[in-house]
Amino acid sequence: MDKDRAALDLDRIKGPVKEEFDSLGVYFKSFLQTDIPIIDRVFEHLIEGGGKRFRPLLVLLVSACSAARNPEHTFRLAVAVEFLHTATLLHDDVVDQSDLRRGNRVAYRIWGAEPSVLAGDYLYSRAFNLLVEIRDPAVLETISGATTRMARGEMLQLLRSYSPATTREEYLEVIRGKTSSLISATCEAAARLAGFDGAGIKSLREYGHNLGMSFQIVDDVLDYAGEKGVFGKATGKDFLEGKVTLPLILLMERLGAPEKSRILEIFKADSPSEEDFQAILEMMEGNDALEGTMEVAGSYRDAAIEALRAIPPGPCRESLESLADYVLERNQ
Amino acid sequence: MDKDRAALDLDRIKGPVKEEFDSLGVYFKSFLQTDIPIIDRVFEHLIEGGGKRFRPLLVLLVSACSAARNPEHTFRLAVAVEFLHTATLLHDDVVDQSDLRRGNRVAYRIWGAEPSVLAGDYLYSRAFNLLVEIRDPAVLETISGATTRMARGEMLQLLRSYSPATTREEYLEVIRGKTSSLISATCEAAARLAGFDGAGIKSLREYGHNLGMSFQIVDDVLDYAGEKGVFGKATGKDFLEGKVTLPLILLMERLGAPEKSRILEIFKADSPSEEDFQAILEMMEGNDALEGTMEVAGSYRDAAIEALRAIPPGPCRESLESLADYVLERNQ
Repeated sequence: MDKDRAALDLDRIKGPVKEEFDSLGVYFKSFLQTDIPIIDRVFEHLIEGGGKRFRPLLVLLVSACSAARNPEHTFRLAVAVEFLHTATLLHDDVVDQSDLRRGNRVAYRIWGAEPSVLAGDYLYSRAFNLLVEIRDPAVLETISGATTRMARGEMLQLLRSYSPATTREEYLEVIRGKTSSLISATCEAAARLAGFDGAGIKSLREYGHNLGMSFQIVDDVLDYAGEKGVFGKATGKDFLEGKVTLPLILLMERLGAPEKSRILEIFKADSPSEEDFQAILEMMEGNDALEGTMEVAGSYRDAAIEALRAIPPGPCRESLESLADYVLERNQ
Repeated sequence: MDKDRAALDLDRIKGPVKEEFDSLGVYFKSFLQTDIPIIDRVFEHLIEGGGKRFRPLLVLLVSACSAARNPEHTFRLAVAVEFLHTATLLHDDVVDQSDLRRGNRVAYRIWGAEPSVLAGDYLYSRAFNLLVEIRDPAVLETISGATTRMARGEMLQLLRSYSPATTREEYLEVIRGKTSSLISATCEAAARLAGFDGAGIKSLREYGHNLGMSFQIVDDVLDYAGEKGVFGKATGKDFLEGKVTLPLILLMERLGAPEKSRILEIFKADSPSEEDFQAILEMMEGNDALEGTMEVAGSYRDAAIEALRAIPPGPCRESLESLADYVLERNQ
């Protein structure tokens, strides 16, 4: 999908909540104000960093599917989940020592490790302040359960790095924690706030789970297939950090013993190199590993759309459906 | 105070809640279990790291001052505040790149920055899970407000490092955030759970605030006066990291212009050296800067004990009073 079409698609998806979505920035700013100008500038840099605000968009769309929504609390939830997500990005950047994130030099490189850790902690606790203000125990439980699963998933991922023998199930367990749990909880909490009944809440949680799985799998494909550019991640970044993701796991499943042991050798060395990356890319082309991975992502997309059948049809449900397509077709 | 007397004092202070205090370890373990053995080992190392469990002790003592306590929730709160505290220690270690913490090699040095950041995040979200389970919005509000003030205090501290012109007020603002806010909120939340009325809650919050201020000021004195040993922090650690604390601020207040500018020079250089530290120590001796700082800590101790007058007298109140003395007299 080229960039222009992607932007058009996103605009169409945001349509039913355009006004609310455009006002998010004001809420971000007002909920972040620290009374310390230099810290406010750090956060402004983060906010203006061009994130897609994917999770807030989900909150707004789910909320708009219902007539019973409470706008004040919906915005609190939308901002809280974005803060939580940004906090994990900041901490991931320290963990990964990333060079590129959303095409900007990451906060970590600009200000060192300290502010990234502390700013992440600040965002994390501001998120909980906002959630507490919503005063709905079920919402708090949903999101705080998800943050624990996120942290667990991140730790699992670290444990399994440089292990090319990681299985498909182990990989899915990691991404269920690190990515899908918050997206699923976001949809569930938004559904609760919007007054959906038990069946509706369950459907939207399912939708979020499947959307999150597909989102992360596509992200992992883009690490091998994405274009290195101003925006997005540098290609091969995860691979060079020793992260073993679905494309590599599928490749391993499809390789014969000699090629398999070559890959095992690569990961036994100090760290994989650019040449190793090119060699792996060639093997993937010969084995349709990326296509196979996209098929897995596609099955999660299908499940996400299927889960929406319990939701009343209309422009908001259509946007949620299109979002599932967008996640699959995007190239950044 | 020598180590034997300190241990005796602590035993006496813990007396009224000895049984509960001794069972904390079991709760820590059960609330931390991750189902990932290697991660459980990291946390066991942290738990067995010999922390004083000062905040859980406060929860238990405050709770035991009342007849209306709810043991199940009291333990949740006790464990949650210790998790929050441990999370900030883990993140501080990354920020400070510490070598010694509680006499052990810090988690950061043993396992690198990644697990420290992630384990901190995990502890942080587990703490919120526990707080959510208590299902008392006021408790959640109290603690989540404190975590935000903590993060703000940590960021302020980082901003003001290497600034010997930091004022006393600026220093007090930093420690009110980074240390006193959680201790104060711990006492307040414990008082709420224990069924204290408005006046009692206010008194215990005041007690915690003053105790926390005195605790941090003594900590900062120990950085200059403490013995380098198996336990505790290495002397001069904060100074060498460029942290400007009350002893140095008092010294600056008491110095003439030429000596003042010598200190300004020291901080202008790349980073203060061991020799700089020795020179500063000598100036402090000549100006009674440490004694003056201890007097400030003493006035917070007095205010802490004064705040307890609204609490019914008895062995628990006595323990809280003795704790305020202990904080002042400890040498580690």
